[in-house]
Amino acid sequence: MGPVTEQQTQSRTPLTDLSPEALADFAREQRAAYDELVAKGLKLDLTRGKPASNQLDLSNGLLALPDGVTDASGTDTRNYGGLQGIAELREMFAELLWVEPEQVIAGGNSSLTMMKDTLVDLWIWGGVDSPRPWSQEESVKFICPVPGYDRHFTLLAAFGIEMVTVPMNDDGPDAAAVARLVADDPSIKGMWVVPTYANPSGAIASHEVSAALASMPTAAPDFKIFWDNAYAFHHLTEDEAKSADILTLASAAGHPHRPFIFASTSKITFAGAGVGFLAASTENVKWWLGHLGKGSIGPDKVNQLRHAQFFKTAQGVRDHMTGHRDIIAPKFAEVQRVLRERLGGLGVATWTDPTGGYFVSLDVLDGTAARVVELAKAAGVALTPAGSSFPHCDDPDDRNIRLAPTFPPLDQVTEAMEAVATCVLVAAAEKLGASA
Amino acid sequence: MGPVTEQQTQSRTPLTDLSPEALADFAREQRAAYDELVAKGLKLDLTRGKPASNQLDLSNGLLALPDGVTDASGTDTRNYGGLQGIAELREMFAELLWVEPEQVIAGGNSSLTMMKDTLVDLWIWGGVDSPRPWSQEESVKFICPVPGYDRHFTLLAAFGIEMVTVPMNDDGPDAAAVARLVADDPSIKGMWVVPTYANPSGAIASHEVSAALASMPTAAPDFKIFWDNAYAFHHLTEDEAKSADILTLASAAGHPHRPFIFASTSKITFAGAGVGFLAASTENVKWWLGHLGKGSIGPDKVNQLRHAQFFKTAQGVRDHMTGHRDIIAPKFAEVQRVLRERLGGLGVATWTDPTGGYFVSLDVLDGTAARVVELAKAAGVALTPAGSSFPHCDDPDDRNIRLAPTFPPLDQVTEAMEAVATCVLVAAAEKLGASA
Repeated sequence: MGPVTEQQTQSRTPLTDLSPEALADFAREQRAAYDELVAKGLKLDLTRGKPASNQLDLSNGLLALPDGVTDASGTDTRNYGGLQGIAELREMFAELLWVEPEQVIAGGNSSLTMMKDTLVDLWIWGGVDSPRPWSQEESVKFICPVPGYDRHFTLLAAFGIEMVTVPMNDDGPDAAAVARLVADDPSIKGMWVVPTYANPSGAIASHEVSAALASMPTAAPDFKIFWDNAYAFHHLTEDEAKSADILTLASAAGHPHRPFIFASTSKITFAGAGVGFLAASTENVKWWLGHLGKGSIGPDKVNQLRHAQFFKTAQGVRDHMTGHRDIIAPKFAEVQRVLRERLGGLGVATWTDPTGGYFVSLDVLDGTAARVVELAKAAGVALTPAGSSFPHCDDPDDRNIRLAPTFPPLDQVTEAMEAVATCVLVAAAEKLGASA
Repeated sequence: MGPVTEQQTQSRTPLTDLSPEALADFAREQRAAYDELVAKGLKLDLTRGKPASNQLDLSNGLLALPDGVTDASGTDTRNYGGLQGIAELREMFAELLWVEPEQVIAGGNSSLTMMKDTLVDLWIWGGVDSPRPWSQEESVKFICPVPGYDRHFTLLAAFGIEMVTVPMNDDGPDAAAVARLVADDPSIKGMWVVPTYANPSGAIASHEVSAALASMPTAAPDFKIFWDNAYAFHHLTEDEAKSADILTLASAAGHPHRPFIFASTSKITFAGAGVGFLAASTENVKWWLGHLGKGSIGPDKVNQLRHAQFFKTAQGVRDHMTGHRDIIAPKFAEVQRVLRERLGGLGVATWTDPTGGYFVSLDVLDGTAARVVELAKAAGVALTPAGSSFPHCDDPDDRNIRLAPTFPPLDQVTEAMEAVATCVLVAAAEKLGASA
């Protein structure tokens, strides 16, 4: 876990220490390698944080389920009703998320939709502890740890919510910075946290950081933590991170309605046909279902039953995840190998070595991230647009690149990463003023 | 189709024409029958507009589908993406709804959710032709034909949208009344229409009424028709209603962005695990997907593929509906028989004889609907609360009762309807002042 600063496999001279001549030689060498890349006409893609086809195959058992149509309570899952989701699946994920079943809502195929719905409800109607709907506030701000998840930022931007960034450290959001911001400004209404194997850095919010966020005084009486635990069970090693129990921490600190936990099976079973979950205080759950019920007569309970039968138990979910690990851990290892062998010791990049999740966060020389992405594109390697991990796509240092190695086959990961490394070096040499 | 005024099977004297003594005799007789009912300890339910278990069985083929996981375009339906829904299912329902495939969005398991999402989008962001978001208008009103669908009204009430009622006639909403209202009041932003086999009357909006609604001048530049075609294919007879082509009518009249069509397979396949659809102008579709995309990476395409494979063609959907008709038409016939035999000619009730849909609308003597529901409840027969088909549950005449005969088995429909008839007669006798 945590950023790796230039893990060196051999002793190398940082580019900044090279003589102008040596730097020019280096630049020519890399440019030649780049020209060869372009000539190859590659068509590779490291943009997509989505499961590979053989990961999806692990869940093909779902396609022949459910066996029978009634849930454990005897309810016919094919018919209307059951707004909160079927009990056995809520119980299973309550155990996995360390909450009570009555604190869990099992929804449709997307936790992102549940996040949007939560924002819509806060916006139009206000939360259980809101003095007024958020739309009636003069301004609404959210704290966004960066680098972070682009869709979180896009969602806030749609509401015109101002995004205030804080650093995402190795142990989670910079809690001291957050505490200072929220203490005095009542317009700061919430924050994003991806607690486990964060997108894109892989950082894990520590118990201490989580406790600080749960307990800090906030000027807004209805401050919310959107705790997006998308990768809670998505371990890449046997050193499995345990997410902090944010509901208990917040409740113990006297802020039971502060956290909304989101999770899903999108990267456990089928990315497009899984089940999303929300967990919160029972008052928040009641509030949420009240608004949900205006536009729903219940979720797809057949798909929920399908999932409950497929996993059987919470342990079934954990066991299932080792299959994913076996498929994607080699891809992550390959990303590390290429970065280390090609960039290590040259002083032009740092990157994270996550123990879970879906991404590697690569920091290149300041002011070169956009150029790297541009070079890669011209060489047929699609990278996530530079700045994507920042609000409004604006990376103030133009240095962060998100790498997503899960979807391509392993040989393509290798090829794409070799290309990325070359692009990083070409851009770095340009930046350092190498003559052509 | 249309209201049946006291279809008489035999010549009877209306209660109002009875002498006080004869009325008292009648009241005693009905009261005795009612007491017998209560003694039976019935437990029957006519509230639920949901399919019976054997209707759901018609679609059990879905449980073993999909066969393969790629759609016609070769996309892996298990993974993320495809915001608008898979092409083959959109094509199928485009044909059924007489629109173009690019005008159709295939969504999740609920068209009601798509209605709410549309309102949310109009409310927070405004439509393609809105001068400003609806939430920024001084007031927003909707026209609600009554009797109508309770969930439509509940949804509007959640937004604080004022509901202006117009009569729901046999040929659809009272178009002249609607035209008068919308011509001068720019705060009237939209209306509900259930064009085919309306809930609860079974009325079918005629081509003429539909054309009038599509073309009428409106003071609001962004007036919307929420065209909830929930029962488009839900025929009870071979005289199959054809819904008006509202998109073409509106487009031809210069108001292409006025209608949003909603439909779903909720009462075709599985009520809780079907597919919802929205159809609108291509600009509206683009607008809708733009907002959807903030909180979704695509619908459950596996379930969409399941449906596409199950139906195979648009004709497959039509053919499938005859199975439903075979199951529920006898229940509707039984409702008619009991009402006719028990209430016909007595001048205490009128009711509709729908040729499709899920409901029968029963009008009892003014001021007695709540009493009928109360009497029925005490006798163990659950009826939808009186007034449910009106905004804020307020039936100004206290006369309308919605009957939903699809869910209970046929023998229970008979038993429940006999009880309802007795309650109607007891309440009528009370109302007419029969001495006990």
